[in-house]
Amino acid sequence: MKSFIQSDEHIEILFKRRDQEYLAEKIKKEFMTIIEERLKSVPNIFDMTAILVEYQTSAVIGVIKYWYQHSRSISEEEILEKIYEISSNGFLNTLKKELSNKL
Amino acid sequence: MKSFIQSDEHIEILFKRRDQEYLAEKIKKEFMTIIEERLKSVPNIFDMTAILVEYQTSAVIGVIKYWYQHSRSISEEEILEKIYEISSNGFLNTLKKELSNKL
Repeated sequence: MKSFIQSDEHIEILFKRRDQEYLAEKIKKEFMTIIEERLKSVPNIFDMTAILVEYQTSAVIGVIKYWYQHSRSISEEEILEKIYEISSNGFLNTLKKELSNKL
Repeated sequence: MKSFIQSDEHIEILFKRRDQEYLAEKIKKEFMTIIEERLKSVPNIFDMTAILVEYQTSAVIGVIKYWYQHSRSISEEEILEKIYEISSNGFLNTLKKELSNKL
């Protein structure tokens, strides 16, 4: 993930050109290759594994795109920490925690 | 979520026309309005709340798009269950569980 953000210029250009569709497909493919090598089998198209890759890749690309579109006003570390927190604890728990802090 | 999938035809057309960018923005806006009403304040652009909305909306739209692109070969209930499982337990825990079942 860190190296992903660090190959900075190219990614910024891709987001600006609204080519994130292409970027997403490339990342999903890489992700799937790593998993397939580990599993030594190709996940079925509706396996939880394939859905997980779709879910997480789309989420991370969505957040990073948002971060670029808002002039990256928080640091790389901060945005990665937030992504890591949601990925570890889950969207629902993180949202509950967040809302109970604010209400 | 259920009503989202059930307004079926329109959504299928949007995905086919690759207008999911437009769809995503509309859903994020709705989501934000609900949260803002509950919080009675507008979340800061890099609040965890705003990031959570980005993360989850992108993830869910990504998975549903994938489901449409693969002829919706599993039922609406099954795909919603999978999304709910990942959203509750988090990507990392669900992936660990999934890989440990398969290795």
